[in-house]
Amino acid sequence: MPPPACAPPTARAAIGALVASQIREVANAGIDDPRVLPFWFGEPDEITPAFIREEAVASLGRGETFYTHNLGIVELREAIAAYLTKLHRPIDAGSIAVTASGMSALMLSAEALVGAHDHVVAVTPLWPNLVEIPKILGARVSCVPLDFRASGWTLDLDRLLDALEPTTRVLMINSPNNPTGWTLTRTEQETILARCRRHGTWIVADDVYERLYYGKAVTAPSFLSLAGPDDRVLSTNSFSKAWSMTGWRLGWIVAPAPLMDDLGKLIEYNTSCSPVFVQRAGVAAIERGEATVARTLSRYRAARDYLVGALAELPGVEIAAPAGAMYAFFRLRGLRESLAFCKRVVREAKLGLAPGSAFGPDGEGFVRWCFASEVDRLRDGVARFSRFLASLDSK
Amino acid sequence: MPPPACAPPTARAAIGALVASQIREVANAGIDDPRVLPFWFGEPDEITPAFIREEAVASLGRGETFYTHNLGIVELREAIAAYLTKLHRPIDAGSIAVTASGMSALMLSAEALVGAHDHVVAVTPLWPNLVEIPKILGARVSCVPLDFRASGWTLDLDRLLDALEPTTRVLMINSPNNPTGWTLTRTEQETILARCRRHGTWIVADDVYERLYYGKAVTAPSFLSLAGPDDRVLSTNSFSKAWSMTGWRLGWIVAPAPLMDDLGKLIEYNTSCSPVFVQRAGVAAIERGEATVARTLSRYRAARDYLVGALAELPGVEIAAPAGAMYAFFRLRGLRESLAFCKRVVREAKLGLAPGSAFGPDGEGFVRWCFASEVDRLRDGVARFSRFLASLDSK
Repeated sequence: MPPPACAPPTARAAIGALVASQIREVANAGIDDPRVLPFWFGEPDEITPAFIREEAVASLGRGETFYTHNLGIVELREAIAAYLTKLHRPIDAGSIAVTASGMSALMLSAEALVGAHDHVVAVTPLWPNLVEIPKILGARVSCVPLDFRASGWTLDLDRLLDALEPTTRVLMINSPNNPTGWTLTRTEQETILARCRRHGTWIVADDVYERLYYGKAVTAPSFLSLAGPDDRVLSTNSFSKAWSMTGWRLGWIVAPAPLMDDLGKLIEYNTSCSPVFVQRAGVAAIERGEATVARTLSRYRAARDYLVGALAELPGVEIAAPAGAMYAFFRLRGLRESLAFCKRVVREAKLGLAPGSAFGPDGEGFVRWCFASEVDRLRDGVARFSRFLASLDSK
Repeated sequence: MPPPACAPPTARAAIGALVASQIREVANAGIDDPRVLPFWFGEPDEITPAFIREEAVASLGRGETFYTHNLGIVELREAIAAYLTKLHRPIDAGSIAVTASGMSALMLSAEALVGAHDHVVAVTPLWPNLVEIPKILGARVSCVPLDFRASGWTLDLDRLLDALEPTTRVLMINSPNNPTGWTLTRTEQETILARCRRHGTWIVADDVYERLYYGKAVTAPSFLSLAGPDDRVLSTNSFSKAWSMTGWRLGWIVAPAPLMDDLGKLIEYNTSCSPVFVQRAGVAAIERGEATVARTLSRYRAARDYLVGALAELPGVEIAAPAGAMYAFFRLRGLRESLAFCKRVVREAKLGLAPGSAFGPDGEGFVRWCFASEVDRLRDGVARFSRFLASLDSK
């Protein structure tokens, strides 16, 4: 058999250039070592509640193993609409597209809006997926870095407004933010929306952490409350974080009515639909999951308070309590190569953390620690980290 | 709240221009009418076998509700590799990417290979998804039509070779084909592969119907048997058809080793991973499903033989027995607008069929009838169709 006459069988250049996950790179160095205590992934330490799993089991028992509507089963779209109406503003089930994960919701949103050479702006540090997705579609992405101060992460609003060109197609914002916990204020959202309205720029708001918010309200401020049904605002969301359903791959998009037919087509061409038995579990989570959300939030608040306090006492650590999400993203004085550092922490301290550089160049010098965990486990981790830092000093 | 200063909030032009499913358009005209006998979708009439569903239930019971590897759990990748090794040639688990549906496998393949302005060739009539996907990525698609004769559908190989330009990036082929049942011969595959090798053109082979093959072998001829591990051949597949798992959204890609890292990144950015409990069901299907496949094939063969014979006797119907897949795709003399015709059939005959034009302009004048069904149900459908045709003649 003759070899192909041309280069090796690789993907196109734009795909080769996508960043691979540095979190995975660290995890690969220790994921099979049972002695490692992992806090690298953004994942709860608890399995999905039984009342949610039971709905999927019942659905499978009934034989719900067929194709369903591209945009999701009516029961789930209505449940999500009622849930969001309570949280934000009246939202119609016709504005909801059920997706095969929050991740898929973001990819579908990008496909709907972004083509080759289009300009996209993102606020960083940021989990890499949001920045990489538009590149798959040939878009150009500009990043606007947050500022880190003793009081926490803040957005220089003028800097963001400067980055928004009149032809910018999409602004991607994840608030509460992974990894920093930074959360947009209502006033900031008003300013951003006004500017985007003027230029016709779309806002794609990744709202997966809106219920993991440590302020007074039951949800972080959302563009959904400000935007009317005809505004160019897409909100993407997921069952993963608030209901501990990471492995289920179920999410949704809230979109203006004129976009829904096209979202249906894109779902057909990406995943066609989500399994009915997974959607049934989603209905249970939404309709009967408020106690779960409250309990999760209370656990994470305790975890956050413990972890931030404990880390702040370690030498060289600069940290502020995050307003939302489930991560401590802290600076370590003198840290230059967070990837190499985190690999060393895995090997020597048997502790799994995520390097700040995984979240873009603005994250270098930082480390991310997921605190979706019991405090005792965090305490063990802090002890390991403390010993490791001390061992560095003594070398 | 001021309205946006610009046009209505719609998707970009390339997305608006994607065709919507004409099958859905027909189905929408009758899907809620219990009197309608539907043969419009490409879906088995049986629920997924219990031994497959039970594996998902057991996994949920064990609490397997967390993220997993982008490329799939090791057990499933190994099971698929062993299965394909038995069917085609030695294939390593490292060449398998598990995907959230055969549909997702095709989208991921396109993302890996096709960028803006790239040229893609497809053989038609064809389910629309394969032709539309590259357009989402900005590619240009040329279609090469099959010929319909009394003996069935055939490919004019010279016409296909002429359409393959030296810079053509991808040839997309679905064989056995939806809707025509046309199936590539080994000799045709050899000729096509030789030409694609010369030009460095990728072959994306949609192999989801390979086990629904009515020839003597246990599988339709596959490019996998011909291609070496370094050839530019991607085979996409799905659990939907052979194991009656349409609603599970589980599939896979076989790819050359140099593509696997990039496929892992793309899965991260599209769906991240497939649910573990769904993948466990996939392991059961692959490892213990041969009797299911054999039974399905035997049912569909009987259904095909009945339906083709019965339709051939109706006035104006031109039909040949398909070599694979699960569709009768027949010409109706004088039919000019298959979409309007099929809507009328739903309304007047309470019979759900798919218009040929749903599969591209080359399908106009034809009708698709899915025979993944018991013969008695098909008999009822044929009686309705026969009465409907007779009523046309009498008008």
